[in-house]
Amino acid sequence: MRRIITLLTDFGTKDYFVAEMKAVILSINPNVEIVDITHEVEKYNILNASFILACAYKWFPKGTVHVVVVDPGVGTKRRAIVVESKNYYFVGPDNGVLMMASLRDGIKRVVEITNKKYMLERISTTFHGRDIFAPVAAYISKGVDLSDIGREINDYIVPEFVEPQIVDKRTIIGKIIHIDSFGNLITNIDRSILDKLNVSYGHHLEVRLRNKVIRVPFLPSYGYVKKGEFLALIDSEDFLEIAVNQGNASKILNAKINDTIEVQIVE
Amino acid sequence: MRRIITLLTDFGTKDYFVAEMKAVILSINPNVEIVDITHEVEKYNILNASFILACAYKWFPKGTVHVVVVDPGVGTKRRAIVVESKNYYFVGPDNGVLMMASLRDGIKRVVEITNKKYMLERISTTFHGRDIFAPVAAYISKGVDLSDIGREINDYIVPEFVEPQIVDKRTIIGKIIHIDSFGNLITNIDRSILDKLNVSYGHHLEVRLRNKVIRVPFLPSYGYVKKGEFLALIDSEDFLEIAVNQGNASKILNAKINDTIEVQIVE
Amino acid sequence: MRRIITLLTDFGTKDYFVAEMKAVILSINPNVEIVDITHEVEKYNILNASFILACAYKWFPKGTVHVVVVDPGVGTKRRAIVVESKNYYFVGPDNGVLMMASLRDGIKRVVEITNKKYMLERISTTFHGRDIFAPVAAYISKGVDLSDIGREINDYIVPEFVEPQIVDKRTIIGKIIHIDSFGNLITNIDRSILDKLNVSYGHHLEVRLRNKVIRVPFLPSYGYVKKGEFLALIDSEDFLEIAVNQGNASKILNAKINDTIEVQIVE
Repeated sequence: MRRIITLLTDFGTKDYFVAEMKAVILSINPNVEIVDITHEVEKYNILNASFILACAYKWFPKGTVHVVVVDPGVGTKRRAIVVESKNYYFVGPDNGVLMMASLRDGIKRVVEITNKKYMLERISTTFHGRDIFAPVAAYISKGVDLSDIGREINDYIVPEFVEPQIVDKRTIIGKIIHIDSFGNLITNIDRSILDKLNVSYGHHLEVRLRNKVIRVPFLPSYGYVKKGEFLALIDSEDFLEIAVNQGNASKILNAKINDTIEVQIVE
Repeated sequence: MRRIITLLTDFGTKDYFVAEMKAVILSINPNVEIVDITHEVEKYNILNASFILACAYKWFPKGTVHVVVVDPGVGTKRRAIVVESKNYYFVGPDNGVLMMASLRDGIKRVVEITNKKYMLERISTTFHGRDIFAPVAAYISKGVDLSDIGREINDYIVPEFVEPQIVDKRTIIGKIIHIDSFGNLITNIDRSILDKLNVSYGHHLEVRLRNKVIRVPFLPSYGYVKKGEFLALIDSEDFLEIAVNQGNASKILNAKINDTIEVQIVE
Repeated sequence: MRRIITLLTDFGTKDYFVAEMKAVILSINPNVEIVDITHEVEKYNILNASFILACAYKWFPKGTVHVVVVDPGVGTKRRAIVVESKNYYFVGPDNGVLMMASLRDGIKRVVEITNKKYMLERISTTFHGRDIFAPVAAYISKGVDLSDIGREINDYIVPEFVEPQIVDKRTIIGKIIHIDSFGNLITNIDRSILDKLNVSYGHHLEVRLRNKVIRVPFLPSYGYVKKGEFLALIDSEDFLEIAVNQGNASKILNAKINDTIEVQIVE
């Protein structure tokens, strides 16, 4: 069966960076299928990349190798790692970017990439995506075992993930963790929290964000309100989302990633 | 032979949406070839998506499955459909977006997607691209027959496509139906209309658009006028196009999709 | 073995252009692997495309067919060519865009594309990417010999590539030849020139650009200076690069492609 390697970077698509990674991968394993997750992660934003990876990784077939290069520390002493989780491999810098997904899937082992046999012969100081991560991913997709790639480590970096707080039976404080290309605001408040507080369709939520307060209905999908109206819904990744039907909630509210959001159930 | 599935959406490329659709497709049919048409359809713009699909679909090998997700009604009562046309399959929402292409190719049958066997187990209310359209397309690419996917329907939505009018022997009134990334203005006036009015290279056209009048030569291609000069030409999809050699006609004229354009042959 | 065709254009990704090229290629050779280098070359900028190709081409497996369509002269008398170099094929317009890469790899022969057998039946005047270059590339990937595609020519266009000047033992005058999506300024001053002048890590460079003078350390990678600080480094393609750690050098200096840059070694 044809293995899949995914790529997730902040490289953009106007340069030769992504193509060179693909070239290196296909030179080592011509039979692999490469899928771009996105290359438009906010530059240097490790948290944004973490979240996108944590959403996307699990939809791929078991054994998929996910490569993430959001790597402001490239060429310094930061280590290069591979995570083997229950169902996947994650390849990237040891700066925490792989951890949200890896922890959700369940970490089996983490190795530091040290075996030069699985890197390009000449390693640049600024593009380990091409010179280290791409070839290592390609070799893993060909069946190379992690024990051959480097030694197991336990002191890899795990960022602190901010969890939402349930303040009382009607109030939750969370964060905006992603704004999608439609301007929808995705929070870190997941379905289970809303279930716990017995929120159901038809309820209204009072949302406080950047000194603004809006009252929005909680509904199954965008088309349940008129064009231009706000609503709250559970998004396709099971997070609470604030949206405007056929509009851009982010622009209207001037909301940014990492903003605090307070949600009150007002019925 | 390896089947092709194409994707055409308004999702943009900065999120995990497109990747999740690909992940679902490759999980069901690892041997399919996925080709992006574009993910930068103007948000919610069904007409824009229709036009792009109607241009692109016919260049693909027979049997290609085209998936279109421009779907402001997701999660409401709008139906999900598959069109089998003479040479292709079209999968998407029943909001008219598939019809310009389907009608041009010739519709054989339309089925409403109802068989849950060909959807993901858990269906979100906001992302049928991943949960319904992607798996259905993957199963069609594996040979599943439409009769197994749902019942045939005849009351699918067909939008009204505005046709250009021939006012007199020298005058045509049409619309701007697309503006490409070069800023070229593509009209709904096709080659056959110009042929009917005996327009040929070297003729001049007087173009009225947004209260501006410009006089432009009708020529085979951009390089026949100097850099920065206007011309009219037949584009690669056989539509009349107003362009500026190495410039951006859309910006200069402040033209928008759906603008009325009057074309007069002045010789 | 599966052959690779790469695509490099200024088409953007919002239209149907790239998809139609892929459709044509896959109709002729369903077993080819298509890799996008980028479609965001600055519109009509042959030099920018040349540079990106010259960086990317060499990372692909031998035998890869590189198609480049930055083609303001489409539909005029400019010729269509294929270059066979030591390890690759290059397909595109005869406007110089293929030459930086071809010359670096070593040209074996150049043929003018004339055999209509390897083009689409109907050839538009504005989209030879789809009607000529894509099918020719697909046929080459299937093993068609260049001698069958057209006659060998020797008068193909070779642009003048501006080389950097070594003014004295401490001074180099070069050009900005690329600005990447991070805003890093890539110059045409390559590693060998810096080696010749004995520049090594820890040295400082005085950089003159657009009437500004900045003094920057020469270091292995971005993370060696604080966030927001300038540095000079050798980039992953062996060119001298001026960058800001986690910042955008291009915006701060208001630098543009083709700007002259004077570099003085101040130790």
